[in-house]
Amino acid sequence: MKIEHPYLMFLGDAPDQLAAKTASGIVYWRRDWCLGQIKLPTCKADLGIPNMSIKEAKEVGCRTLVLGVANRGGIIPRAWIPTLVEALESGMDIAAGLHQRLEGLEEIRDAALNNNCKLFDVRHPTTTFNVGSGVSRSGKRLLTVGTDCSVGKMYTALAIAQDLKSRGIPSDFRATGQTGIFIAGSGVSVDAVVADFISGATESLSPENDSDHWDLIEGQGSLFHPSYAGVTMGLIHGAQPDALVLCHEPTRTHMRGLTHQPVPDIQSCIDLHINAAKLTNSNVVCVGISVNTSGLINEEERQTYLSDIESSTGLPAIDPVIDGVAAITKTMD
Amino acid sequence: MKIEHPYLMFLGDAPDQLAAKTASGIVYWRRDWCLGQIKLPTCKADLGIPNMSIKEAKEVGCRTLVLGVANRGGIIPRAWIPTLVEALESGMDIAAGLHQRLEGLEEIRDAALNNNCKLFDVRHPTTTFNVGSGVSRSGKRLLTVGTDCSVGKMYTALAIAQDLKSRGIPSDFRATGQTGIFIAGSGVSVDAVVADFISGATESLSPENDSDHWDLIEGQGSLFHPSYAGVTMGLIHGAQPDALVLCHEPTRTHMRGLTHQPVPDIQSCIDLHINAAKLTNSNVVCVGISVNTSGLINEEERQTYLSDIESSTGLPAIDPVIDGVAAITKTMD
Repeated sequence: MKIEHPYLMFLGDAPDQLAAKTASGIVYWRRDWCLGQIKLPTCKADLGIPNMSIKEAKEVGCRTLVLGVANRGGIIPRAWIPTLVEALESGMDIAAGLHQRLEGLEEIRDAALNNNCKLFDVRHPTTTFNVGSGVSRSGKRLLTVGTDCSVGKMYTALAIAQDLKSRGIPSDFRATGQTGIFIAGSGVSVDAVVADFISGATESLSPENDSDHWDLIEGQGSLFHPSYAGVTMGLIHGAQPDALVLCHEPTRTHMRGLTHQPVPDIQSCIDLHINAAKLTNSNVVCVGISVNTSGLINEEERQTYLSDIESSTGLPAIDPVIDGVAAITKTMD
Repeated sequence: MKIEHPYLMFLGDAPDQLAAKTASGIVYWRRDWCLGQIKLPTCKADLGIPNMSIKEAKEVGCRTLVLGVANRGGIIPRAWIPTLVEALESGMDIAAGLHQRLEGLEEIRDAALNNNCKLFDVRHPTTTFNVGSGVSRSGKRLLTVGTDCSVGKMYTALAIAQDLKSRGIPSDFRATGQTGIFIAGSGVSVDAVVADFISGATESLSPENDSDHWDLIEGQGSLFHPSYAGVTMGLIHGAQPDALVLCHEPTRTHMRGLTHQPVPDIQSCIDLHINAAKLTNSNVVCVGISVNTSGLINEEERQTYLSDIESSTGLPAIDPVIDGVAAITKTMD
């Protein structure tokens, strides 16, 4: 799966900015790939990039219409179909991250066939994977892990990838979820593969590489999350990380979606993820803590919080948005 | 999914006894459900139960033809189809554990439709599951775990279920793999569900029950197996076990299928599985070790091996085939 850019960002009839969260993430990390946006008349979201018709998008060179908008139930409404068909008829591919498959809609499937265009349903892996082998691969790998879901694992991996690139260190961001896949242009939605193939899919996502090359692998879930820890475990074993970065959101009072489930403390979380990772890479180390401090009250509280973590763990602790990730990447060579 | 018994066991053209391993397991645990076997002329396997034609099987009351034979690539050969169609035309359902789906073969699908019969592809879950909630459920649960794959987890769970039943303790065996599903008549192939739903599928497999009722849940894989530990992790969290039994095969020199991967020691394996299980049941304990001693040289070595484990762990260690499981079940009340 290789999604061709530049992208035309389709926002449909998004009722608010939050519904366009995926699209916003893509524009944030790949502004140069996103030439324009296209909306239906009732759309309430905006990406701050030029509005374009399909015709205009085609003229400026867009190769793929990206459907980066959430919708109740993950369904593609009828109102979107004429625009999607028009994009296909102009020769663009379509990539979507919804539960409903593009392939499942007759008009879209037919238009894609007739115009020799590709449809990418990034939530639905189409590749056949091998089961994981656990055999060591050359190259270096960093995996972001977390105390919970939605604590900045994708952001942190992307920030590290960007920092390494800026310093000329060969590296690739490896996407394991839908937004990440749009940003990378390829990847595997590991939570959507058949359970037996979680580690195998991750091995194929991050193949052998030059000995000085870093893969920055987007983590998923948490070994402490009762809903998703199986995915996290397979991802850790398949990634064979040399380095882990633990991501954390300090104002969370319980695990996401589970009011009865407490958030683990940082040291326990480091220990458990390192212990699991040792099965396929005995040299793995934790190289830093990435904290989303946006919920803390002021700069003083933020500084105290981060320096307390640094003292107790002996590792650099940063907010990647405010501080950047250099304190972590300087330990990677 | 509820597979109706009695069963007619279909052996096809199995080249040897090992190819009929699934069928043998079903006959071992459910002799009274298996009224007969049916073979093609070149079949080299035998279950030691009466040979029957489809017509004879129907007359003695068989409700389901069970395709319990492995085949290279998991494919249904053309030579099997006439017998399978004849079974459907006589009104029997068919249940299969192959990779290829019965539904995928036109003659079989049509015969099932025309005769109002059911097709069960036990490797391919058809239910939609919720993600796991981690919320505690009433009733008691025992999960078998292992140092590796194929070390007796299904056998041990079934032996414990049988022992509890014989002592009037309310209990159910809960199947998580194909052979177990044929033996239970229902279950979920957890390694075949979408990764996000491993723990949720396991929660649905073992629902709330009376406070004195035991579910004996068949384990899968091992937290120490780099190919399958994700499945094991989700299964442990979804099962919320009160009790674990660790299964082990002492002559194994490496993890199944992975010559580079060492087998963990017993105490590490207990500790890691208990630690993982505590996330959803803080009261979980390990209640015994179930060892397949068939590879040990003689009775003296066997006794020494088991008593060494008992001394080092402080837990009962038995071979369920030779010693039975009473030493473990007497601790369950």
